Amino acid sequence: MINLGVIGYGYWGPNVVRNFNGIPNAEVVSICDYQQNALKRAKNIYPKTNIISDCREILFSPRIDAVAIVTPVSTHYDIARQALENGKHIFIEKPFTSSVEQAEKLIELAEKKNLKIMVDHTFLFTGAVKKIKQLIDDGTIGDLYYFDSTRVNLGLFQKDVNVVWDLAPHDLSIMDYLFNKNAVAVAATGMAHFDNDLENVAYITVYLSGNLIAHINVNWLSPVKIRMTMIGGCKKMVVWNDLVSDEKLRVYDRGVEPEDKVSAYPLRVNYRSGDMWAPKVEQSEALKEEAEYFIDCIANDKKPFNDGYSGLRVIKMLEATERSIKKGGELVYL
Amino acid sequence: MINLGVIGYGYWGPNVVRNFNGIPNAEVVSICDYQQNALKRAKNIYPKTNIISDCREILFSPRIDAVAIVTPVSTHYDIARQALENGKHIFIEKPFTSSVEQAEKLIELAEKKNLKIMVDHTFLFTGAVKKIKQLIDDGTIGDLYYFDSTRVNLGLFQKDVNVVWDLAPHDLSIMDYLFNKNAVAVAATGMAHFDNDLENVAYITVYLSGNLIAHINVNWLSPVKIRMTMIGGCKKMVVWNDLVSDEKLRVYDRGVEPEDKVSAYPLRVNYRSGDMWAPKVEQSEALKEEAEYFIDCIANDKKPFNDGYSGLRVIKMLEATERSIKKGGELVYL
Amino acid sequence: MINLGVIGYGYWGPNVVRNFNGIPNAEVVSICDYQQNALKRAKNIYPKTNIISDCREILFSPRIDAVAIVTPVSTHYDIARQALENGKHIFIEKPFTSSVEQAEKLIELAEKKNLKIMVDHTFLFTGAVKKIKQLIDDGTIGDLYYFDSTRVNLGLFQKDVNVVWDLAPHDLSIMDYLFNKNAVAVAATGMAHFDNDLENVAYITVYLSGNLIAHINVNWLSPVKIRMTMIGGCKKMVVWNDLVSDEKLRVYDRGVEPEDKVSAYPLRVNYRSGDMWAPKVEQSEALKEEAEYFIDCIANDKKPFNDGYSGLRVIKMLEATERSIKKGGELVYL
Amino acid sequence: MINLGVIGYGYWGPNVVRNFNGIPNAEVVSICDYQQNALKRAKNIYPKTNIISDCREILFSPRIDAVAIVTPVSTHYDIARQALENGKHIFIEKPFTSSVEQAEKLIELAEKKNLKIMVDHTFLFTGAVKKIKQLIDDGTIGDLYYFDSTRVNLGLFQKDVNVVWDLAPHDLSIMDYLFNKNAVAVAATGMAHFDNDLENVAYITVYLSGNLIAHINVNWLSPVKIRMTMIGGCKKMVVWNDLVSDEKLRVYDRGVEPEDKVSAYPLRVNYRSGDMWAPKVEQSEALKEEAEYFIDCIANDKKPFNDGYSGLRVIKMLEATERSIKKGGELVYL
Repeated sequence: MINLGVIGYGYWGPNVVRNFNGIPNAEVVSICDYQQNALKRAKNIYPKTNIISDCREILFSPRIDAVAIVTPVSTHYDIARQALENGKHIFIEKPFTSSVEQAEKLIELAEKKNLKIMVDHTFLFTGAVKKIKQLIDDGTIGDLYYFDSTRVNLGLFQKDVNVVWDLAPHDLSIMDYLFNKNAVAVAATGMAHFDNDLENVAYITVYLSGNLIAHINVNWLSPVKIRMTMIGGCKKMVVWNDLVSDEKLRVYDRGVEPEDKVSAYPLRVNYRSGDMWAPKVEQSEALKEEAEYFIDCIANDKKPFNDGYSGLRVIKMLEATERSIKKGGELVYL
Repeated sequence: MINLGVIGYGYWGPNVVRNFNGIPNAEVVSICDYQQNALKRAKNIYPKTNIISDCREILFSPRIDAVAIVTPVSTHYDIARQALENGKHIFIEKPFTSSVEQAEKLIELAEKKNLKIMVDHTFLFTGAVKKIKQLIDDGTIGDLYYFDSTRVNLGLFQKDVNVVWDLAPHDLSIMDYLFNKNAVAVAATGMAHFDNDLENVAYITVYLSGNLIAHINVNWLSPVKIRMTMIGGCKKMVVWNDLVSDEKLRVYDRGVEPEDKVSAYPLRVNYRSGDMWAPKVEQSEALKEEAEYFIDCIANDKKPFNDGYSGLRVIKMLEATERSIKKGGELVYL
Repeated sequence: MINLGVIGYGYWGPNVVRNFNGIPNAEVVSICDYQQNALKRAKNIYPKTNIISDCREILFSPRIDAVAIVTPVSTHYDIARQALENGKHIFIEKPFTSSVEQAEKLIELAEKKNLKIMVDHTFLFTGAVKKIKQLIDDGTIGDLYYFDSTRVNLGLFQKDVNVVWDLAPHDLSIMDYLFNKNAVAVAATGMAHFDNDLENVAYITVYLSGNLIAHINVNWLSPVKIRMTMIGGCKKMVVWNDLVSDEKLRVYDRGVEPEDKVSAYPLRVNYRSGDMWAPKVEQSEALKEEAEYFIDCIANDKKPFNDGYSGLRVIKMLEATERSIKKGGELVYL
Repeated sequence: MINLGVIGYGYWGPNVVRNFNGIPNAEVVSICDYQQNALKRAKNIYPKTNIISDCREILFSPRIDAVAIVTPVSTHYDIARQALENGKHIFIEKPFTSSVEQAEKLIELAEKKNLKIMVDHTFLFTGAVKKIKQLIDDGTIGDLYYFDSTRVNLGLFQKDVNVVWDLAPHDLSIMDYLFNKNAVAVAATGMAHFDNDLENVAYITVYLSGNLIAHINVNWLSPVKIRMTMIGGCKKMVVWNDLVSDEKLRVYDRGVEPEDKVSAYPLRVNYRSGDMWAPKVEQSEALKEEAEYFIDCIANDKKPFNDGYSGLRVIKMLEATERSIKKGGELVYL
């Protein structure tokens, strides 16, 4: 039995608790939040669980094996560091940390202590992402050309992070996972329309090794909600619309291929426009699978693929994005 | 009666001829193309018109008042220069010229000769753009925040221009017209996936005066065709989907406003989420109106709003975009 | 405080319990189901509530004021009759009863005992239906022409009722509520494709007083899920798509009107095609409002508009539908 | 060379002329219309063709082999009869005739004279219908369950025919062609909302041999245009949306099958919910293929599948529909 402490019981915390509690060899033994409302809600649903307001009770408890950190990103490093120092595995909300430096320190600490870090990039466990990953890995999509993602809506203006740190971790972690390529450089633009300095709209280009380009459009000021990702490959192209319940994924037998790779100029391409295919996408809860995977990684000493390094790669791109925006789009190498 | 010569009878030329011929006080007296197929097609439909293969017959003809130039952009400058030198008004395809320098020379020449230049930014005459312009000008939209346009499809790879010069003139001219603000700088990224050096995907950010940002996504390698423009304002937000026949324009009573402009920090915004309204959009042919407007500008010595300066502003942004892409996204001031 | 007993804790029962428990002056004191699974689930969530398997404990309990009957329709009459006989108000799932006769008996009994019957036509409490009702009542829609509803999907084949009794009560109750007209006759067709005699597809036409027609298309064998209702009026037309989260309701300024009502022949109509308008639709939980309304009707001795007579009108149409289908579409007068 | 005369040059006639003129071994030698406007339009496009206002010049001309009849349905019988009597093959607009009796007489006359009748059910030559036909014939769809078609819009109110005779011939001819089953009976409802007696909304159920049901919803008073046909089969289900340019056809691997065909009761079904597949649909002009097929049938003495009998079957269903509507939905056997 693996005992967990969950720190943070706001919007996402209840889902984390529910899913870990649903695993036979795991149990959430303590839930911590500093807000009375949250504690009351937790108590109502889990009358037998230890509900506390001081997270040190979790961080120093000898009966707790792993800590789920579901707090604002600015608090991640301190909590995670203490958890690791006290021998606890961590399951930590995205984005991993506030800086590359913090992420690197946590990874180093976890390695020294032989502990697991899992960064909660929940989307990687959705049926849609798993299906796309499979289509890329089995060669269906062919050589990749681009990743183009739009994640916009009338969003909650955060007080401490801009739209990039709020929304882009989803797309960056998905792109990192699917493409499995080194990000070479970032060029990004954006704007803060209101009195603070936090961008509410941003456009991020990531150059990846192998002539690959990724672009992410995030916006808190869009009248319509869009969650759409396009992936272009030489054999097939994929459109993933996460807002529809059916046919989230469309695979198009459509594209161009250079007619003859040796002839230099002029370019001649062959166009292909065939069937479209919407593969059935698994509908199970992503967080459930991720929670089970975390417990499995601990119980069987496996290295999670969404480990600290995965989180670090996203933080590197976020940091570079922010620096590029401040310089009006300048290319920032990673 | 204003006599026109039309040079170029490929894809767009037939529409230009048909629409000018539909105007009572205008007549296309000569059509020129260097391809036999095109000439044959023209002859079949207009048996009484002078169909020729040497455009000098138009450029030097004393009976021709105005020349419509519907040829590839690389030929625009030479043809336009000769037309102006010979005292002819010009109606010229977008993009206006291949360079800022060429555009400036043509404008100067036209002013010296007191001739009209109209750049065929057809979209400015569509019901959708006219309606948005009206909503901005009458204050319905309120202060503007951003312009975000996506124009992607499985497009014809051009041999001489990249996706930016092919598709972005539409969005840049629309943005220039609607926002009526100075473009200050451009930061753009893109990639050429094939053997030539012509980008097939590009992302353009234009910074405008007054804390405004515009972004344009153009792509020849998209499995789905998208023509969508979003405009964010403080009172209303507009989504224009040009691919639907009904309800092209949606006006959302949705947005945020700073709660109290004096309090510095933290930011507090009020959210508004009300009705949506799809105003009826005029369905007449845009090119018909534009052709009539050109004839009217000549007949009544009016200055067209889509004149050489309008074309020049677009060329400046295109040039800056290209330079920025080559430098990986660097900010290029205009 | 009004004490409730809830009989039936399958799919819908938990929602009923949760919503009644959320009302300050109401409390669910007993929950009954004959399935062990259901009882266990109830016990987990409501450890302090009396969880039982014999509904007579509710029906005869002196401390219970009202009974919510959330069981299969075949059991409605017996349970409802006993509840009423024992002086309890009833909140009863749609469809009200299995027959017109049963419905009439329950109404009579309730009137004699001065008790409330509320038939759970939940849709009447949705923001969409309330908004349409308002648009009809305030004259926005104008004189009504037709009601046309499609409710199809790959549905669960029921063992005891056909697709008409399963799905059509929604549309019939909505139509009855919105139009507030007498149903005069029904003509319906349908087919049972499998071994039993229960139709899995059906088409129902209801003729209403005042030259009004309603049509309902229900189907358990549709590959796509559709929930769409169109309402035609002389001033406006409404399309309600219940499957989208935004813009569920569209009001079209579109229609025809006879040009001159006196001239007999030939018909001349004026076409109107103007703006479309998507009014904001309230998003609160419909069942929550309905539950509050039930408690309010009891506490303040009000007559619910979705009372036994409302349920009876639906049952009359369902019975007529079934009879018409069996006769291949014959007109059945009500 | 087969010489044609085309009678009727209104909305559809120009398409008929253009397509027959595009066939190498066919030529439209005469075009007839009684309206001066139509004649003028024809003369402009076909200056060398014989343009006339008295159709007898076509019907009695010895140099004309075949007559295309593109006139209102009320005139079909007289024109077609004279054409056949004078030894001409006929290509005739849908609906074939105004009555079953007329259709039967024309068929008899054509057979006696050994002439071809082709009824212009253009939809049968679209890529979408051809693809569905292929999927049915090669067993992909499996045993058929139902055909459900919606064809509604804000339509032109006709003065001489109701919405059934205007719109339903499309759906009835498609259903007849695809299912290739005997229509056994019709039950239909509808309503005329205005002063004349012509229904502007109608709902048609056709019972076919083999436990098959077809339903058609036609409406001239719909705020939105819908052209959607669903076909349910035991192996696959098809949704055809004719208003989208891409992915008109969707084939769903979704459905139910009786679990065990011997066990009588209760019904147990297995649900299947797999991939969706949008086969590429041929985009060529349907009328072009149909015109070529007509010429081919004449030149090579083939029997067209859309012959007089095909037209007659549709007329039988239209007549039955009208009779059923007048009786409020009564079942009319064919």
